[in-house]
Amino acid sequence: MNTFQDWLRARVQATPQATAVIIGERQWNYGALGQQVDCYCAGLIQQGVMPGQHVAVFLPNGLAYLCLVHALARLGAVLVPLNTRLTVAELSWQLTQSDCHLLVYGEESATVAAQLAGESDCRIVDAVTVARLGEGQMVESGFLAKTHFRLDAPQAIVFTSGTTGRPKGAVLTFANHFWSATASSYRLGLLPHDRWLSCLPLYHVGGLAVVFRSCLYGTAIVLHERFELDTFNASLERDQITLTSVVPTMLHRLLALRKDSPWPSALRHILLGGAAATAELLQASRESGAPVATTYGLTEVSSQVATLCPEDVVRKPGSVGRPLMFTTVRVVDETGRNLPPNEKGEIVVSGPTVMAGYYKNPTATAAAIRHGELYTGDIGFLDDDGDLWLVQRRSDLIISGGENVYPAEVEAVLRQHPAVADACVVGLPDAEWGQQVAALVECHPHATVSAAELLAFSRSRLAGYKQPRLLEFTPALPQTASGKVERRAVVSYLSRFKNGELP
Amino acid sequence: MNTFQDWLRARVQATPQATAVIIGERQWNYGALGQQVDCYCAGLIQQGVMPGQHVAVFLPNGLAYLCLVHALARLGAVLVPLNTRLTVAELSWQLTQSDCHLLVYGEESATVAAQLAGESDCRIVDAVTVARLGEGQMVESGFLAKTHFRLDAPQAIVFTSGTTGRPKGAVLTFANHFWSATASSYRLGLLPHDRWLSCLPLYHVGGLAVVFRSCLYGTAIVLHERFELDTFNASLERDQITLTSVVPTMLHRLLALRKDSPWPSALRHILLGGAAATAELLQASRESGAPVATTYGLTEVSSQVATLCPEDVVRKPGSVGRPLMFTTVRVVDETGRNLPPNEKGEIVVSGPTVMAGYYKNPTATAAAIRHGELYTGDIGFLDDDGDLWLVQRRSDLIISGGENVYPAEVEAVLRQHPAVADACVVGLPDAEWGQQVAALVECHPHATVSAAELLAFSRSRLAGYKQPRLLEFTPALPQTASGKVERRAVVSYLSRFKNGELP
Repeated sequence: MNTFQDWLRARVQATPQATAVIIGERQWNYGALGQQVDCYCAGLIQQGVMPGQHVAVFLPNGLAYLCLVHALARLGAVLVPLNTRLTVAELSWQLTQSDCHLLVYGEESATVAAQLAGESDCRIVDAVTVARLGEGQMVESGFLAKTHFRLDAPQAIVFTSGTTGRPKGAVLTFANHFWSATASSYRLGLLPHDRWLSCLPLYHVGGLAVVFRSCLYGTAIVLHERFELDTFNASLERDQITLTSVVPTMLHRLLALRKDSPWPSALRHILLGGAAATAELLQASRESGAPVATTYGLTEVSSQVATLCPEDVVRKPGSVGRPLMFTTVRVVDETGRNLPPNEKGEIVVSGPTVMAGYYKNPTATAAAIRHGELYTGDIGFLDDDGDLWLVQRRSDLIISGGENVYPAEVEAVLRQHPAVADACVVGLPDAEWGQQVAALVECHPHATVSAAELLAFSRSRLAGYKQPRLLEFTPALPQTASGKVERRAVVSYLSRFKNGELP
Repeated sequence: MNTFQDWLRARVQATPQATAVIIGERQWNYGALGQQVDCYCAGLIQQGVMPGQHVAVFLPNGLAYLCLVHALARLGAVLVPLNTRLTVAELSWQLTQSDCHLLVYGEESATVAAQLAGESDCRIVDAVTVARLGEGQMVESGFLAKTHFRLDAPQAIVFTSGTTGRPKGAVLTFANHFWSATASSYRLGLLPHDRWLSCLPLYHVGGLAVVFRSCLYGTAIVLHERFELDTFNASLERDQITLTSVVPTMLHRLLALRKDSPWPSALRHILLGGAAATAELLQASRESGAPVATTYGLTEVSSQVATLCPEDVVRKPGSVGRPLMFTTVRVVDETGRNLPPNEKGEIVVSGPTVMAGYYKNPTATAAAIRHGELYTGDIGFLDDDGDLWLVQRRSDLIISGGENVYPAEVEAVLRQHPAVADACVVGLPDAEWGQQVAALVECHPHATVSAAELLAFSRSRLAGYKQPRLLEFTPALPQTASGKVERRAVVSYLSRFKNGELP
């Protein structure tokens, strides 16, 4: 039973009249979405896309993106979703690394796409052209009949920054998405009239997962291009939202905006992920009656690993709950042995949602997946009830506004400046952003560079959300006995600048 | 991803505190159910049950039955659920036919079980002994580790009477149950606090399916030994039932009992299956506000094929709705070609819920499953919206009080009487039972037998629910031009007796 009709086609057959997508004032039912996807399929075929090929999608959230996700699945081609906030250098590296044959871009990215075409072997085409090429074309059914929609086939290569600096491409299969959607429905419930408000970018696993969940369940996705506070808040009521996923920054702003106005009664869950939520945020949520479900997820595990439902968040704020059905979590010491309850260690995850591996990176794959278990690098513990608590996302990962920032990557760029000897990048607690990127820099003896110069240097090489918001100099970075930079001391030191205790 | 932990173990790990089973005043959460199942596992191992063996279960609905279903799944043994209403001769034939190694019986069936032991090679043990043998025993983990819980492994052999007279054993796999549960949740929705009231016998696929759905979803099954009107009605409110499955006879009685009292607001769906519902029953349901979802299911398709949700039943009473996700329905002519919308023909079903085949019956399997499609023998049509309408369950199947009665089986018994030349058994419309079994008998020239004698003869060979309620004699059965008995004429003729138009 590993071969299926593709999910969208099965869904169109099951409930063509059910609402599939709502974007602003427009909506499409599954029948209409299916017709759109037929166009994109025909257009991609005209562009020479073949089963097994990799196709990058460089678009903001929108109908075209949704259609491309389904069309590539139907064609047996692999989606490579690109982060629209990256620099040309970062994008070019990912395109080459993932062996993309074609890049589909949006009008707003035409200039960047042209630059990328110049720097790689990848052909480019804009999404409007793909759709137009396909209009009125009958997809040759023989061609599609030949493509197999296998559960264990790769669906996407999703890049996730690594602690070693370079992003790695997590290969997610349809089976990963299927089991994630299935176990998610067991934890959160599903109702045929559910509507999931999604403002997370579709190039993130948190956004992508909602596309497959909705299609499998036959429910609607209410898609926003980005998080815009007033639009999001208005949509909750107007679009009769039952589920949504947010990161702490968004929830923080929503709570401030809504103050004491009651949450819509139809709203069943606000899935809060992306970073460990602070106690203050959870308390404010509780006081406002927001049905917050805290969750822990990873790109490498196709999103959700564990989720605590609202009634339990009230009882046990701070935990992310028990692992989902079919997912097993162990907390281990450095030798990989299980730790007793309440002892902190590395979170190790196994089950059918664990990725196939990192694309063309056997070293990283072997380091992350051992005997079928994913070593997350995240630190946490299981309490006596088996509920998971997240202590720290990877040893040094910074999550700012829901985006992952890996210090090693930022540090590597800073070190490229001729005046810089070493740099340590850390996350400082921040009420609005969750964490704020901050850097402490050690210059070469007698060399100097201003903070402004160094930030300008970094800005040309790194996406904006990775830029340090605070950058200070030191004659020598604090070191541990073994000679490693003592990150905790850097955090304390930089916090004093942030809090105005140091000039 | 075809190998898993067994579902109960995965569920215990995911939500040990969630309510699993409610029987009368008692309830068990998944942790407690898991411990019970451990006992039964150990007891079955003590009884020598090995992976791959077939074990008959001859019990009324209850905790022991539930535990045995899960324990056999864990051990990799195949469940053969026996209909407790059958005669010794019928049971003995099924036991032999299904190659059972062991029969587990309940105290109330000790005499029948002893007779069965005498007539077959199958060993017998009572359920209490199995549980007691296992108490305090640690199941040797090495043994269980060796058993694979594969999705495509057989879970059960469920006997279903066939038009050729002898029951056939439908082999259902875990994958069949999984996809049935999954597609069912997409159509009906699921909420973590769902409670499914099940009074259908667990030896029927309609009862068995609820066991796996509940376990997968992590919801509760409220198990009644049988349908007892007042108990059922009281349970709806007391146990906060959200879903239940009934056959028309039960709904008919419930409506009469409840009259104008409103249905509990928590009750989301009353799944009405087992036979085409009459227009009168649907109208009475609508008037009472009962959230009836009409459904079409078959043992060979692991229960649900198509279901129409309550809001659509109001709009289109009589239809059973669109096929569930992943299930495809065609309506074909005698050559197997698709008929246009609204034209009646045979219902052909394909998808991941179609059984593996009939056990040790390649002829029947080949007749039923052709190129992966199940030819149901049921007659219906698809309307312009793709909604299915059921016209007649198999050509001649009688459904009386939710039980399938195959005329050929009853006819075969009647023909065994020396005085009987031929017999035709049909179902007459009946407000309470849906259909009533009626027989028209042709005796050999010069031979005579009274209706009472013939019924006594039949009663010793057939379960009570298969007995004709009306039996009349005729000098010659009406025949079609091709020499077949004209069943429609028999129905008209016998209806006149039932209605008092003939003496």
